[in-house]
Amino acid sequence: MRHTITILVENEFGVLTRVAGLFSARGYNIESLNVAPTLDATVSRMTLVTRGDERVIEQIKKQLNKLIPVIKVEDISHEVHMEREMLLVKLQSEPGSHDAIIALAEEVRAKVIEDAADSYIILELTGQADKLDAFISSLEAYHLIEMTRTGPLGMRRGARGFTLD
Amino acid sequence: MRHTITILVENEFGVLTRVAGLFSARGYNIESLNVAPTLDATVSRMTLVTRGDERVIEQIKKQLNKLIPVIKVEDISHEVHMEREMLLVKLQSEPGSHDAIIALAEEVRAKVIEDAADSYIILELTGQADKLDAFISSLEAYHLIEMTRTGPLGMRRGARGFTLD
Repeated sequence: MRHTITILVENEFGVLTRVAGLFSARGYNIESLNVAPTLDATVSRMTLVTRGDERVIEQIKKQLNKLIPVIKVEDISHEVHMEREMLLVKLQSEPGSHDAIIALAEEVRAKVIEDAADSYIILELTGQADKLDAFISSLEAYHLIEMTRTGPLGMRRGARGFTLD
Repeated sequence: MRHTITILVENEFGVLTRVAGLFSARGYNIESLNVAPTLDATVSRMTLVTRGDERVIEQIKKQLNKLIPVIKVEDISHEVHMEREMLLVKLQSEPGSHDAIIALAEEVRAKVIEDAADSYIILELTGQADKLDAFISSLEAYHLIEMTRTGPLGMRRGARGFTLD
């Protein structure tokens, strides 16, 4: 089963190594990961996607909670939540393909970040992973120079937050 | 100096632990990090932001290149490039604040992801880190329930890509 885990950690150094190490020690691959600062400069928030057995994930969560810099852990896969990520793609653009690429972007409301018409186009799209995947597929006829995506952020629906207290 | 480093790695397990470990071993904090799959399912791409001495970063880059699963490393801070990230914020919404929050969102073209008018609003904004920071500041008068951001993705400008070959 796919698990999306959100973690609040103190910005001590080495914390990322230790968190990632708990997964790799059990042979669990981290499919995607985000780490970035929060409003409190001493605290970072991670969103981590992995696949695996419920029981093993439970064990990893317990071990995460035992790490001193870990403040809070939640497997939001069990909650009503949403996941969104961001994609950037750079495509080769030529007189013959430029307008078609822009039209595809407009269809899904991708943002045109750069449009060097006779050379390349950079597009940005946000949404659920499957929407991003479908968009990438729709670009198959064109020359994709480069793509990069953030991996999902996860947030519970509803008025409750995932915060320090 | 702030460095934005992009890395292509084979999806062997433990690779994240090893990459992160090279930074923590030198006492370098990873300010933000993204890891997500690429078009080639066996390869992931990371974008990592850290601050430090040019010489030390050069050494870390060399060590990264020596790790078997690391395919390519680039410090794009030295290149003409752009960085964009995604932010999600959940705000408390009440009859007295709802319209003002929506107006602030429209001003910066943030997307309204959920609008439970009498309870909470979830907004999404993409762009450079300073734009996201400024938006968060502009929300100070309202009750921020939760925020999460991806950390930046980095991409060179120009037609050249950052790919396997």
